[in-house]
Amino acid sequence: VENNLDAQTKDLITLARSWGSQHLEPLIPSYWDKAEFPPNILSSFRDHCPSLLGYTLPKQYGGQGYGLMAASHISRALASIDASFTTTLLVQYGLCAESILLCGNEDQKRRLIPSLARLENMGCFCLTEPRSGSDASDLTTTATKVDGGYSITGSKRWIGNALTAEVFVVWAKNTSVEGHPVMGFVVQRSHQKNKGAIQTRKIEGKVSMRILQNADVDFYEAWCPDTNVMGGHVGFAQSVGRVLEASRISVAWIPVGICQGALEKTIQYITKRQAFGAVISSNQIIQEKLVRMTAHVCSMYLLAERMTQDFIAGKCSLPAISMVKAYTTKLGREVVALCREIVGGNGIVLDFGIASKWADIEATYTYEGTYEICSLVAGRALTGVSAIKSASAIKNSIKRRQQSKL
Amino acid sequence: VENNLDAQTKDLITLARSWGSQHLEPLIPSYWDKAEFPPNILSSFRDHCPSLLGYTLPKQYGGQGYGLMAASHISRALASIDASFTTTLLVQYGLCAESILLCGNEDQKRRLIPSLARLENMGCFCLTEPRSGSDASDLTTTATKVDGGYSITGSKRWIGNALTAEVFVVWAKNTSVEGHPVMGFVVQRSHQKNKGAIQTRKIEGKVSMRILQNADVDFYEAWCPDTNVMGGHVGFAQSVGRVLEASRISVAWIPVGICQGALEKTIQYITKRQAFGAVISSNQIIQEKLVRMTAHVCSMYLLAERMTQDFIAGKCSLPAISMVKAYTTKLGREVVALCREIVGGNGIVLDFGIASKWADIEATYTYEGTYEICSLVAGRALTGVSAIKSASAIKNSIKRRQQSKL
Amino acid sequence: VENNLDAQTKDLITLARSWGSQHLEPLIPSYWDKAEFPPNILSSFRDHCPSLLGYTLPKQYGGQGYGLMAASHISRALASIDASFTTTLLVQYGLCAESILLCGNEDQKRRLIPSLARLENMGCFCLTEPRSGSDASDLTTTATKVDGGYSITGSKRWIGNALTAEVFVVWAKNTSVEGHPVMGFVVQRSHQKNKGAIQTRKIEGKVSMRILQNADVDFYEAWCPDTNVMGGHVGFAQSVGRVLEASRISVAWIPVGICQGALEKTIQYITKRQAFGAVISSNQIIQEKLVRMTAHVCSMYLLAERMTQDFIAGKCSLPAISMVKAYTTKLGREVVALCREIVGGNGIVLDFGIASKWADIEATYTYEGTYEICSLVAGRALTGVSAIKSASAIKNSIKRRQQSKL
Amino acid sequence: VENNLDAQTKDLITLARSWGSQHLEPLIPSYWDKAEFPPNILSSFRDHCPSLLGYTLPKQYGGQGYGLMAASHISRALASIDASFTTTLLVQYGLCAESILLCGNEDQKRRLIPSLARLENMGCFCLTEPRSGSDASDLTTTATKVDGGYSITGSKRWIGNALTAEVFVVWAKNTSVEGHPVMGFVVQRSHQKNKGAIQTRKIEGKVSMRILQNADVDFYEAWCPDTNVMGGHVGFAQSVGRVLEASRISVAWIPVGICQGALEKTIQYITKRQAFGAVISSNQIIQEKLVRMTAHVCSMYLLAERMTQDFIAGKCSLPAISMVKAYTTKLGREVVALCREIVGGNGIVLDFGIASKWADIEATYTYEGTYEICSLVAGRALTGVSAIKSASAIKNSIKRRQQSKL
Ligand SMILES: Cc1cc2nc3c(=O)[nH]c(=O)nc-3n(C[C@H](O)[C@H](O)[C@H](O)COP(=O)(O)OP(=O)(O)OC[C@H]3O[C@@H](n4cnc5c(N)ncnc54)[C@H](O)[C@@H]3O)c2cc1C
Ligand SMILES: Cc1cc2nc3c(=O)[nH]c(=O)nc-3n(C[C@H](O)[C@H](O)[C@H](O)COP(=O)(O)OP(=O)(O)OC[C@H]3O[C@@H](n4cnc5c(N)ncnc54)[C@H](O)[C@@H]3O)c2cc1C
Ligand SMILES: Cc1cc2nc3c(=O)[nH]c(=O)nc-3n(C[C@H](O)[C@H](O)[C@H](O)COP(=O)(O)OP(=O)(O)OC[C@H]3O[C@@H](n4cnc5c(N)ncnc54)[C@H](O)[C@@H]3O)c2cc1C
Ligand SMILES: Cc1cc2nc3c(=O)[nH]c(=O)nc-3n(C[C@H](O)[C@H](O)[C@H](O)COP(=O)(O)OP(=O)(O)OC[C@H]3O[C@@H](n4cnc5c(N)ncnc54)[C@H](O)[C@@H]3O)c2cc1C
Repeated sequence: VENNLDAQTKDLITLARSWGSQHLEPLIPSYWDKAEFPPNILSSFRDHCPSLLGYTLPKQYGGQGYGLMAASHISRALASIDASFTTTLLVQYGLCAESILLCGNEDQKRRLIPSLARLENMGCFCLTEPRSGSDASDLTTTATKVDGGYSITGSKRWIGNALTAEVFVVWAKNTSVEGHPVMGFVVQRSHQKNKGAIQTRKIEGKVSMRILQNADVDFYEAWCPDTNVMGGHVGFAQSVGRVLEASRISVAWIPVGICQGALEKTIQYITKRQAFGAVISSNQIIQEKLVRMTAHVCSMYLLAERMTQDFIAGKCSLPAISMVKAYTTKLGREVVALCREIVGGNGIVLDFGIASKWADIEATYTYEGTYEICSLVAGRALTGVSAIKSASAIKNSIKRRQQSKL
Repeated sequence: VENNLDAQTKDLITLARSWGSQHLEPLIPSYWDKAEFPPNILSSFRDHCPSLLGYTLPKQYGGQGYGLMAASHISRALASIDASFTTTLLVQYGLCAESILLCGNEDQKRRLIPSLARLENMGCFCLTEPRSGSDASDLTTTATKVDGGYSITGSKRWIGNALTAEVFVVWAKNTSVEGHPVMGFVVQRSHQKNKGAIQTRKIEGKVSMRILQNADVDFYEAWCPDTNVMGGHVGFAQSVGRVLEASRISVAWIPVGICQGALEKTIQYITKRQAFGAVISSNQIIQEKLVRMTAHVCSMYLLAERMTQDFIAGKCSLPAISMVKAYTTKLGREVVALCREIVGGNGIVLDFGIASKWADIEATYTYEGTYEICSLVAGRALTGVSAIKSASAIKNSIKRRQQSKL
Repeated sequence: VENNLDAQTKDLITLARSWGSQHLEPLIPSYWDKAEFPPNILSSFRDHCPSLLGYTLPKQYGGQGYGLMAASHISRALASIDASFTTTLLVQYGLCAESILLCGNEDQKRRLIPSLARLENMGCFCLTEPRSGSDASDLTTTATKVDGGYSITGSKRWIGNALTAEVFVVWAKNTSVEGHPVMGFVVQRSHQKNKGAIQTRKIEGKVSMRILQNADVDFYEAWCPDTNVMGGHVGFAQSVGRVLEASRISVAWIPVGICQGALEKTIQYITKRQAFGAVISSNQIIQEKLVRMTAHVCSMYLLAERMTQDFIAGKCSLPAISMVKAYTTKLGREVVALCREIVGGNGIVLDFGIASKWADIEATYTYEGTYEICSLVAGRALTGVSAIKSASAIKNSIKRRQQSKL
Repeated sequence: VENNLDAQTKDLITLARSWGSQHLEPLIPSYWDKAEFPPNILSSFRDHCPSLLGYTLPKQYGGQGYGLMAASHISRALASIDASFTTTLLVQYGLCAESILLCGNEDQKRRLIPSLARLENMGCFCLTEPRSGSDASDLTTTATKVDGGYSITGSKRWIGNALTAEVFVVWAKNTSVEGHPVMGFVVQRSHQKNKGAIQTRKIEGKVSMRILQNADVDFYEAWCPDTNVMGGHVGFAQSVGRVLEASRISVAWIPVGICQGALEKTIQYITKRQAFGAVISSNQIIQEKLVRMTAHVCSMYLLAERMTQDFIAGKCSLPAISMVKAYTTKLGREVVALCREIVGGNGIVLDFGIASKWADIEATYTYEGTYEICSLVAGRALTGVSAIKSASAIKNSIKRRQQSKL
């Protein structure tokens, strides 16, 4: 289905895949196994793929200026090798740098983005909290005005790249403004004087995307200078909402890549592996699954492509993006499960290149808006009625309002 | 998703849909119920939609010369109103006239196609036999050389339009050629002198596409003049294979249309119907289904569109087409079942416009290559091994060969 | 799986099946086709199966006193032949007579049930209204106290057996009691003096259970004598709730029967039908589907059996019953769809015995509590929170309450 | 659904679960993470659960003599805590000791089983080879007659417990008997003089059942005395076939346990976790999934129970067992995926008790007969035709036979 790509995009895809299969893929089994991020892989990427550094970011801030379509294909190509690595870049470029790009001022962009693009500084995006993931607006982290800046206190969970990050984009309630609106604050590790201001603890024991490093992060009176406060009081939807819109597009492409990678490995395997006197690909049951998987992957690809085209043309926004993200992660789960099963026992062994893909896709189903939330965001647009909150939620909020009146 | 259509195609779609909703749709409940074809609907179509007559056929033979993409969208638009009517045209244009177009000589094309295009003569396509559907090459109908033509004898089943047809494209074994190759013979009702030469019996009691009229057809020494024999001895794959390739493309689009029609009606219904004090579309379960359906329909549309583009560009052939046909009919079944269920009791009543669509899509899953056969045709191309025959089939054929040697 | 049945139950099952296959089955194709109820089938049943008359009802009111387990197996056996016929009996015995049994007084039981048991009078159950199906408590039909009885006015929809019924169990708001509680009224056609008091119009154009006759019913000042008012003011859940609990058990068994019937026919067909030189049952894809279907049917059977045992033992109530009903209808849909598809084109033709079963199961998914409502009733019990109403419903009711306060 | 258990079985279940949740469960996160078997867990089991030692084995050989039904429930109870631990016991008791029980002579049973029952010796079962898993009869490991015993040479793959085993039940071709029939040989590590006679290499990098230790095993002229040769030349189906029949029953129960464990944890989580102002269990989408999962688990339980009853009663054999095994692993996959997803991000973290269950069930889908093979074994019995081999396999074997004739 990859018919319509221009030469440059094709070259970038080739670069991503050839670097990935040479340098990244061989490391996956052992690093997935021990749940660590390969220590030198980012510098290898920097050295071998200079034209991919900052591939989603505009030229004037140290990126490549390729545009959203090419960038999406690069994400897909990388995800066909490893989704944890791709997510690491996604957090770096698509969430951390993108936040500054969309919500920051010119000075912040110039100061912060280029070193993120070049992977000199690692960045992270601190939205989710231990008690609140799907309901991203229900935050308890606070930013309190102090002299020359803000003091940030609160706990974040699931923060990718946090263990090594210099740049923390933190979403927090600004207690000095009426209504305590959520705003974005760029907290830098190097700015902190107090040792305990930023504490990160690796989330241990994941069964999906084990190579991606996530952390629980506690901010305790962390320092954010006024110059690092983003975007004024434009409101949650205008700020974090636009960032998620952009990054959800990339996330929708990740399962496409994962599945393409898994499918290739699977076809290689089943056309060689013998059982009962013939290749296992000669069996009807296997062929039907193979065709179903292939059709799923084509669907995912075409939906992601159309969404991206439409977004570029200004013809699609969060609901449609959410639908596509929900759908590609859902179909993707089916595809990798089919890959896993038709490879038999070896499908659960990392060496055969399918096991990690099977496990990793689970995370994509959940992060950046779960399947349910994305469906309900899309459903709201299709029906004109929000069903995100349950009846109980409405009843609870009425109760709370009544109690607070007393 | 219908972004990329040119103005002419859009106009033709609008014409098809507006004629359909005005003239065809109101008739569906009663004609589906009694399993009859609305007697004046073809003349209404002829009168109101002259620019759709012969919409898949080239200009020089009385068609419109719109090309495959526009024609596919017209089929889709018609199928969004009624799939039986669309299938009637598909048999007429896409199977009967198309056979002559692809396998006939210039004289046959000029003589036979224009009146089919204008719906003056009805045409049918006689391939399937009572004992053999999926294995279209396993035919027992014979064509025996007689003076000035052929004498055709055998039984056909499932033949759409046969009850009223003048033009019967009959696939039969030519017993006068070594190896008895299957060839196409155009048998005309008006040519027969013997009353019993062509006998048609309506297939009663269908539960899907009840408006479409299918028949069992018996040919008994039916007359086919030499001038109506198609295509010389080019072999089955070259003749009927190319016809099925072309028509399977159209069939892949039909579920897209059916589902779009069903989805529209469903959205109208669920955003008005109330239960438990609110519209039923305000329920999470309903919204998730709605989003899933919408994403399915987008997938189906995009896959069909890409397949058609690729076919026009010479980049796709029977396996890919078969995969898409299998997939759109499979997803389509899910979509109409979801429509049916979320409309509740009224979902099984023809008046509400969803029930017939739910029932009709079943036929598309089976005709023009069942889901299984289409999957295995695609699977053969993906793996390089055919799994169409079972092990038993191989064993049986060996036994037969051994027995015939004795 | 039918291991544990006692001899009497086995005999009754045999009787039901042998009568059904001899007398009922041959009529299905033509009556399903024309959407009519076979006129003499009830008297045939009465004549040949005296021991099945009133098979769910206790002896003292003219039933057979077989107990719930045996009765369930009889329903299953009948449903393996035809679900419309079985539903007709279910409405007669399981809804109409059962309502009187559970909510009526001794006089009503003695007076009304025996003739229903013997099928001398037909009975129906009038709960659903045009504007309200799932929310059975949201009724607008009213019963107004008049001298010696009640005057009933309102519209009902979907009422099975209504066209020929003498006994109408009508659920209506008693306007003469504070709070207008819903109560059950037995309206008899023979009691009406006014011609227009009970008007029934057949629901035309169904695509599922076409043999079952449903009607829209309008009551206009229909007469119900005090002696026919059921159950005092015990409240909705205590009256209609208990009836639905009992009848939902029977409904859970119907898909089990439908699927067993469909599966038998399918196995017969696919072990004979040839394609590509071998029986179609020799293909892997077909065998995998066959095994999946068989396992589904076993699951459905065992769940229904355990539910019935538990209910008899007082260990299960509406939530568990609703779960099983939801589940057997859901799995059942999958089973009949698989049957339909592996029979190919003949799967959509009534003569082959599978098509009607495929179509009929849809109704069971929806009636007597839709899949969604049954799931949410079970979900409420499992979680302790009701999710039946949507957030919008809560908001609407608050708005309405606020408006009514003004 | 656990209604029918006798008091003793209930006590054993309670013991298994309480020991498991106290001693085993706390270790899972860290041992799953590092893919190791908790070193002292077997001695803990021995100490705390003496009445579970050898729970599947008869009394006269050191087992408990509980019978198959009680044993199945114990396996289920253990699997609700951890499937790797349960599989370790299954290999020990259900495969290794069971082989000796079913195929060994009295001396072998007395000599070998008791210490396996008491977990003093670890045992393993060596059937699968690197090149052949599903087709268990296609073995290349050979046993060559030498003085006083056999010399075993060949490679085995996937062997559970092999790293620490004393007792290796090895299935190999006896080259000294005409036709080289597969026979069972008990190879003991302590018998080997040659260091390299048994070499085991841990299979690293699994993503499922990481706590279970599997190994690649190479036998090089390993010694098996005549007294350790099992069962004479009774043929493959009579020996390994009967072992697999018995152990496949236990394997069918494992997903039941896994899912019950996962479901409990999930309900606990979703009834506490809040989002958007209410518990997430208050959402319709979540409740529908919960009910579906619950119904699945009930189905799985009832099918496994009925299969076990029927097997005990002599009324069911390999095909039915295979169907149930295929089905419980298939439904089980759906259940744990639903658990995983409705717990959100924490569903992929081992600490929350669901992640390992989600991952572990994959292995059950594949080992002891994959889903496909089990389906085809059942399908063969249902249709009377084997579809296990593909058409290619038949063609290949004919080719091979023809070539060998030349
Ligand atoms: C690998 C990984 C990486 C991540 N990286 C980051 C990161 O870098 N930065 C960051 O800020 N966050 C990150 N996240 C957090 C992620 O965005 C959240 O996990 C996600 O938003 C879901 O939140 P939750 O896990 O708290 O689930 P919850 O919100 O607790 O949801 C639990 C379940 O309930 C469902 N649910 C919740 N509300 C509703 C509703 N109203 N109706 C129906 N269903 C509902 C959900 O769909 C889900 O199935 C990451 C997560 C993962 C797993
Ligand atoms: C509404 C309708 C209209 C039609 N119109 C026409 C028409 O106008 N002209 C015409 O010639 N024909 C027509 N057909 C016939 C149609 O093409 C056949 O029904 C179709 O090819 C399937 O054949 P069958 O019904 O004989 O099924 P069978 O070939 O008997 O197949 C039965 C089942 O077995 C499966 N099966 C068969 N072989 C294999 C295999 N090797 N491996 C795995 N599974 C297998 C099939 O997929 C199917 O599920 C029509 C059919 C329908 C239903
Ligand atoms: C063949 C047949 C026979 C019948 N016989 C009888 C009879 O004899 N007597 C009688 O009284 N009735 C009868 N009924 C009516 C039957 O009980 C109703 O059809 C059923 O209760 C559903 O109501 P509805 O069709 O109005 O659907 P609606 O209530 O309009 O529901 C439409 C859809 O919305 C969904 N929905 C509704 N509320 C919610 C919610 N809160 N959350 C999520 N989803 C929701 C439903 O599940 C359904 O999918 C019959 C129906 C059929 C089809
Ligand atoms: C965790 C684990 C523990 C194990 N423990 C043991 C042990 O202790 N001892 C032991 O001897 N073995 C053990 N096994 C091996 C196990 O029995 C095999 O993995 C299993 O039989 C499948 O074989 P395979 O992995 O070689 O798959 P293959 O046989 O290569 O099959 C690959 C795929 O092809 C499919 N396939 C194969 N043939 C056909 C066909 N004819 N038609 C359709 N589809 C087909 C299979 O279903 C599968 O999906 C274990 C495996 C695992 C994963």
